[in-house]
Amino acid sequence: MADLKEYVSGVARAAKKASVSLRALSAERKNRAILAMASSIDQGRKDIREANARDVTRGREAGLSEAFLDRLTLTDKRIEDMMASLREIASFEDPVGEVIGVRRPSGFVLEKVRTPIGVIAMIYESRPNVTVDAAALCLKSGNAVILRGGSEAVESSASLVHAIRQGLAAAGVDGQAVQYIERTEHEAIDHLVTQSGLVDLVIPRGGESLIRRVVQQATIPVLKHYKGVCHLYVDDSADLDMAAEVVTNSKVQRPGTCNALEKLLVHKAVAEKFLPMVREKMPNVELRGDEKARAILPGIAAAKEDDWYAEYLDLILTVKVVADLEEAAAHIEKYGSSHTDGILSRDAASIERFVGMVDSAVVTVNASTRLSDGGVFGLGAEIGISTDKLHARGPMGLKELTTYKWILRGNGDLRK
Amino acid sequence: MADLKEYVSGVARAAKKASVSLRALSAERKNRAILAMASSIDQGRKDIREANARDVTRGREAGLSEAFLDRLTLTDKRIEDMMASLREIASFEDPVGEVIGVRRPSGFVLEKVRTPIGVIAMIYESRPNVTVDAAALCLKSGNAVILRGGSEAVESSASLVHAIRQGLAAAGVDGQAVQYIERTEHEAIDHLVTQSGLVDLVIPRGGESLIRRVVQQATIPVLKHYKGVCHLYVDDSADLDMAAEVVTNSKVQRPGTCNALEKLLVHKAVAEKFLPMVREKMPNVELRGDEKARAILPGIAAAKEDDWYAEYLDLILTVKVVADLEEAAAHIEKYGSSHTDGILSRDAASIERFVGMVDSAVVTVNASTRLSDGGVFGLGAEIGISTDKLHARGPMGLKELTTYKWILRGNGDLRK
Repeated sequence: MADLKEYVSGVARAAKKASVSLRALSAERKNRAILAMASSIDQGRKDIREANARDVTRGREAGLSEAFLDRLTLTDKRIEDMMASLREIASFEDPVGEVIGVRRPSGFVLEKVRTPIGVIAMIYESRPNVTVDAAALCLKSGNAVILRGGSEAVESSASLVHAIRQGLAAAGVDGQAVQYIERTEHEAIDHLVTQSGLVDLVIPRGGESLIRRVVQQATIPVLKHYKGVCHLYVDDSADLDMAAEVVTNSKVQRPGTCNALEKLLVHKAVAEKFLPMVREKMPNVELRGDEKARAILPGIAAAKEDDWYAEYLDLILTVKVVADLEEAAAHIEKYGSSHTDGILSRDAASIERFVGMVDSAVVTVNASTRLSDGGVFGLGAEIGISTDKLHARGPMGLKELTTYKWILRGNGDLRK
Repeated sequence: MADLKEYVSGVARAAKKASVSLRALSAERKNRAILAMASSIDQGRKDIREANARDVTRGREAGLSEAFLDRLTLTDKRIEDMMASLREIASFEDPVGEVIGVRRPSGFVLEKVRTPIGVIAMIYESRPNVTVDAAALCLKSGNAVILRGGSEAVESSASLVHAIRQGLAAAGVDGQAVQYIERTEHEAIDHLVTQSGLVDLVIPRGGESLIRRVVQQATIPVLKHYKGVCHLYVDDSADLDMAAEVVTNSKVQRPGTCNALEKLLVHKAVAEKFLPMVREKMPNVELRGDEKARAILPGIAAAKEDDWYAEYLDLILTVKVVADLEEAAAHIEKYGSSHTDGILSRDAASIERFVGMVDSAVVTVNASTRLSDGGVFGLGAEIGISTDKLHARGPMGLKELTTYKWILRGNGDLRK
């Protein structure tokens, strides 16, 4: 496998080299390149769809699930969406160069200035639009990117990267700024995440086992979330009609996403009234419950210990009756994923206690967990969500793809 | 070694448990605990000095160097300094709870609030004051801490931790908030840095080999700098008298520190005038040079390739004559450590070009590299310096020991 290792580190060296010129690129030049990417995807549409059709055929022969094949397939509508996303990214403000702090400690001036991180490796699974979004977001934030998509989408990705590089060339930007790992061996990922000194950050997106493998191997920083086991706690002071709307929206508006509701905790004083409301509003959702919930809703399945940890990504909801807010917070601490958890309450003191105790990336108050999203937050396009504590928490947009440097401007200042 | 692994994860679990109550601790309570630490160190002074004397005797018998024994020794003055440092940390503003951003994307209010990171592991070498500073800075920022000091200081550290916990108890703070790894086997570090889910951040301080081992083993985020190979570039437009003062201060004010100057790059148009000025101002500094520098200063040693990468931490300076600013920036990119690098120039365009090209944590303009320091920057006490790109760059103070969470306050808001 020596040649695979050599191939990956060659790609990383090329990205690192390109990253030096990207630091100084003007906003205008970057935007021109991103718009040119959209044009070359438009012009290359026929090739892209043909390459994608070959991926889909191969995937069908390999027996991939229909849901998987659906995510893989590039329709004309999805190609239009990619182009629209590129135009939107071009319209965002350039984060690089922003002065995010000024200090005057004694004599000299100290500026904290936003700068690109350098080289970012994106590891993801089947959806081809991630290739385009990640390339554009990294370019916009002044970073070189190394893309490693799923092997099932390899021809689609290659044709998209070809179009992306045509766009870069049209704007006079170094095509090496966007790299794609064409080798499909899983070991390529292990080599990629150990390129200390060349790659500055790894963002893995996909199933939990992929992400755990990346974290285990990596010697460079990783930003990630393993899963989203989102909770809502319905306090005894909640507006129950509002709570039923919010719970329903959180669960069913798009159940396959990481910010969809998975667990419902209900204060014992309102459980008898509220749980039947939930069942009535979501007849197509399978409820599982603890003993107290089952006493109120006879016929629902008993929740097993594993259910409390599970991210179903499906129309299933596990329900627990709790004695008070403290029991709810302790349950979230133990079983939660620190992604998005919220309270429904009309009592200001309860709200503040919950917000103080629950240590999740996003804590919602009287609002749907589905609002926990970079686009909704107004961060610009979302590159991912972090349940880590370092660098970025929750939805990550363009600014989260930057770091800063300190510029100390003196006039012969010395250390005394 | 199963028992060592079990011991370390027991310590990590205790810290994690304590971290939950630390999140909600008031600033007043935390400050009371930090001041109580100072009192109990004062009262325990006799025991602390006796424990330290045993460490020093054992170290002398083991043949440790005088410089090492000096760093290890606790004099009355150094104990006073520790207490003064604690009082200063108590006087800083509490970073936790600060609202660092408010957005109103559509209907609801989104607050970004500073929160503790959780559990921080500090791995360091011989200086006992790090034990006290790290415990206080982590407590002040609402974090539980796991300390792992050098085995040579084990008795000193144990007696200091005893005093620290007395201080915590006096203020009614959970003593488990400050943990100390008493087992001196090196493998304890390997176990500590793989406690994913219990430990949130590792900060190693010490020699490059210790830090490389931590990075290699860790499955949790690490903030660090390997070394400081600081450069100054003297532009052809520099005020040469000022430049000679700044270069001298950067090199000799305290040569054993990571922000001391190690490499000097001089524009060819001023090298003939400037290099003799440098030699005259720093007669006790050994100069090593490239061919052009040696042509101007005959008799200085020839710099070898290794010299350009070396952090001497001593009165040695390597000197290179460069054709222009671009050559200087390329040299720093290749050989530098991304810690602190600067320019001396009177030309505004040159300064901005240099600042744009050089990607170091701190870039100085007409100022000593020795000013690159958390205390000088006004960040409060310094817990370390990061040459990483993620989370924190350059000097790290109290705020760098925090993260944030998003609080989304709605009124029944749903995802459309």
